[in-house]
Amino acid sequence: MEFTFLGTSAGTPTRARNVTALALSPSGHKPWYLVDCGEGTQHQLLRAHHSVMQLRAIFITHIHGDHTFGLPGLLTSASMLGRTEPLDLIAPVQTHRFITTTLENSDSSLSYPLNFIDSEAPGFHWQDDHAEVTNVALSHRVPCRAFVFTERNLERQLLQDKLRDYGIEPGPSWGELQKGHDVTLPDGRLLRSDDYTQIPRVARRLIVAGDNDDPTLLADASVGSHLLIHEATYTQDVSERVGPWPQHSSAEQVAKFAQQAQLPNLVLTHFSSRYQSGPHGTPNINQLAAEALQHYQGKLFLARDFDTYRLEKDLSLTCLSAENS
Amino acid sequence: MEFTFLGTSAGTPTRARNVTALALSPSGHKPWYLVDCGEGTQHQLLRAHHSVMQLRAIFITHIHGDHTFGLPGLLTSASMLGRTEPLDLIAPVQTHRFITTTLENSDSSLSYPLNFIDSEAPGFHWQDDHAEVTNVALSHRVPCRAFVFTERNLERQLLQDKLRDYGIEPGPSWGELQKGHDVTLPDGRLLRSDDYTQIPRVARRLIVAGDNDDPTLLADASVGSHLLIHEATYTQDVSERVGPWPQHSSAEQVAKFAQQAQLPNLVLTHFSSRYQSGPHGTPNINQLAAEALQHYQGKLFLARDFDTYRLEKDLSLTCLSAENS
Repeated sequence: MEFTFLGTSAGTPTRARNVTALALSPSGHKPWYLVDCGEGTQHQLLRAHHSVMQLRAIFITHIHGDHTFGLPGLLTSASMLGRTEPLDLIAPVQTHRFITTTLENSDSSLSYPLNFIDSEAPGFHWQDDHAEVTNVALSHRVPCRAFVFTERNLERQLLQDKLRDYGIEPGPSWGELQKGHDVTLPDGRLLRSDDYTQIPRVARRLIVAGDNDDPTLLADASVGSHLLIHEATYTQDVSERVGPWPQHSSAEQVAKFAQQAQLPNLVLTHFSSRYQSGPHGTPNINQLAAEALQHYQGKLFLARDFDTYRLEKDLSLTCLSAENS
Repeated sequence: MEFTFLGTSAGTPTRARNVTALALSPSGHKPWYLVDCGEGTQHQLLRAHHSVMQLRAIFITHIHGDHTFGLPGLLTSASMLGRTEPLDLIAPVQTHRFITTTLENSDSSLSYPLNFIDSEAPGFHWQDDHAEVTNVALSHRVPCRAFVFTERNLERQLLQDKLRDYGIEPGPSWGELQKGHDVTLPDGRLLRSDDYTQIPRVARRLIVAGDNDDPTLLADASVGSHLLIHEATYTQDVSERVGPWPQHSSAEQVAKFAQQAQLPNLVLTHFSSRYQSGPHGTPNINQLAAEALQHYQGKLFLARDFDTYRLEKDLSLTCLSAENS
């Protein structure tokens, strides 16, 4: 499972960070999913390795503009490129309304079916061949969701000794069983794939949270998850100065929760534009990392635009951009 | 009068060119106007010398997304920066509808008054202290306008000999007359500014056209204009291959018109993304210039993102970016 940050700034873009978007590839680069789509996401994609032609679904955490205003441009550009594959847009009903009105009032039509799916419907569940997705309600100024991605259809290992014990020699039936298909032999015996194969590892699961001032809402979802991607808009002192209204999290809050939930990997993102990079920047982005590290003993990263991460099959997290390790 | 291209690509952004937007300063940098606002315009402004806090008015040529999808982000970012000055949005009614619905469905409100002004109202006319603006209907797939900017309140020269002949010696009344104000003397005589001052040069006038397949519609407006900024989406051969549907102009078409209208300065923009820059790019952006130069004998420029131009008081046009001269 790989993912690339296309935007890591809260509210407004900066010269170094765009507003929120994340490209997630459950198995290599195609197909891929987009989580949130701030203005300029299609521009960021011009510099990343994901084509809008292979985009399978878009998940929108909440209706705020820094998570949605890139949708009209991305959707119409895909159309200008001649996309014909259907695209799922999993979003609140208001985002569907925004898109419909925008297309109507800009003389735009799409060359492909856009399937609106209500992200706030009770019991939300989405899946394709590669992943299944559920969500969790968060606490923000508007309804907001975290999306939980769990990989599907893991590779199976044949129990070869067991097969031979039952007199089933290598052949096409082995291949079918390994693909997860049940097989009926010429003599009428039914072989169930689950009986003759095993899945030698656990399914990778990661949580991509939207804006949220209460990470503990993710406690249940964190059980069995290997990674949390969560906003840390402020350091704790700034958060207290700003007051509760924006309903964002501090680095400390998220780190404490991740530690308590025993999440092995944590990536912070969605930083207030006040935090600068480089040796002379004040307040400095490193303060967010320093604060989080005081409370969290797992593997911590601060996201940067275009950084790509891989959640390996052994459940370790690798940042493929060396500078950020 | 200065202007900076913030986007020069047609339809979709490329890595070198954003979609359409132009910053126009009638007198130095503040206040300034924006003509069109493709997605990512607020990002481009982070690299230009114009602050959204000094933006006076936005003019939208037509409703297409590559000219409008940057509006919601730009408007809400100005709000997050705490803007309180009113802002005029001169645009088709459909763009007003797009903005209203988008703000409603993204939990956005603006910290300043946004004045919607219908750009397609008969007899459209807008002015502030620095410029007056009219428009011209063009020919495109949707209603589209060119905006004609004429500077106002030119500096006056006192007719000092005439004043002295009438016994009016230097003093505060001279200053008032020079500002264009009429003055009543203590003895009751009324001095009209127009009688005692002269304006030693003509007002600069430039046309910023939207998408258009018939430049001759600008014939009347070109009389007395010193510069035309017009789209040249294709070379003539590509235009013929594409067919009439997109309703864009070729470089040849615009150049022929500008020559016939005796326009002294022409800047082409809004290039199809098929045209590449650099020695190995095919088809090459230089083909558009070569084609235009065959038909036009005035001063020609091809716009690039972030190039700034100045229309001088002597009516000559200077490109302040040296590489493009």
